[in-house]
Amino acid sequence: MFSETRRPGKGPRQAAEIYRATLDLVVRHGYDGLTIEGVAACAGVNKTTIYRWWPSKDELLCTAFVETDLLKVDVTDTGSLRGDLIAVTHQVIDLLTGEEGSRVTRASLGGLDRPGLAKFVATLCAERLKAERPIFERAVARGEIAPGADPATTVDLLAGAIWYRVLVRQTELPTDFAEQLVDIVLGGLPRSS
Amino acid sequence: MFSETRRPGKGPRQAAEIYRATLDLVVRHGYDGLTIEGVAACAGVNKTTIYRWWPSKDELLCTAFVETDLLKVDVTDTGSLRGDLIAVTHQVIDLLTGEEGSRVTRASLGGLDRPGLAKFVATLCAERLKAERPIFERAVARGEIAPGADPATTVDLLAGAIWYRVLVRQTELPTDFAEQLVDIVLGGLPRSS
Repeated sequence: MFSETRRPGKGPRQAAEIYRATLDLVVRHGYDGLTIEGVAACAGVNKTTIYRWWPSKDELLCTAFVETDLLKVDVTDTGSLRGDLIAVTHQVIDLLTGEEGSRVTRASLGGLDRPGLAKFVATLCAERLKAERPIFERAVARGEIAPGADPATTVDLLAGAIWYRVLVRQTELPTDFAEQLVDIVLGGLPRSS
Repeated sequence: MFSETRRPGKGPRQAAEIYRATLDLVVRHGYDGLTIEGVAACAGVNKTTIYRWWPSKDELLCTAFVETDLLKVDVTDTGSLRGDLIAVTHQVIDLLTGEEGSRVTRASLGGLDRPGLAKFVATLCAERLKAERPIFERAVARGEIAPGADPATTVDLLAGAIWYRVLVRQTELPTDFAEQLVDIVLGGLPRSS
């Protein structure tokens, strides 16, 4: 009857150590090298403790990602849509170029052809998009954009440009890359004068 | 003295079969499952023939990608920047959602944390960007955009949005997604009226 003691969304007492070990292992050995036995050994817990909370490594990895501060999104009101979009764009840049974040995201790419991990990454993105909606609601309320402007497409353009440049094209980001991207998305490419 | 008989950029007589086997194997078994021995067996050639032309599997995979029609980019002049950008954006959509292209790109993602494959993907993107430059030169000549408008950033926004939505966020593409993206990049998000 362990269900009595389950704290949904919280995990067991040693949750923090388990999440840390999960991310460490996926970074060091890739998605294929992640095993619940390995996590148990690194976190110093019994593997049955882990299985009680997470029946599969995908579910464990999902929770570890959701709980890590790496993927938290901060949508504090900066006073303008431009400021808000620059702030979240910088957060994506930090995630993909920071030491820990870049190792976690690169390691996860290798698992995107597995349905379990792919579904979880999709869920994580949906959560993140939900968290970013207030940015667009505030902009509509300020009269900056039309109510029909699509938050999902806007986020795809900004986050996608960074993913593509950092992970696929692999060239340096200019220091004002976030500002460049946001200015195009808000005002279009510069016209000839 | 095989250098006398080398045809740089062409490969041996059985090149087409070798490229086909290489892409088939990377799609079926992933980057890790691709071996020169496997390619030789599938293509019906001696493995020394392959090694003579491509000393490593990364170099072989690179050539196979470059030679496949999947990754060719068509920059035919449609008469306007909007038309040209919609056309190349549709080509990225076809690549990432078409049956063969989506399998090849997903399989390659798993190799992006290997320096050899990562470097090659970067080279391929650089080639593609070079092929796309005439689009921007024509637009400047037509007076549609300022000479300072950055082709690389524009391509990052358009291609990145598709990569991000198809591979990371994994949600459906609206049928007019290419038009939506290009209209934002050219004119900015819709303003409140």
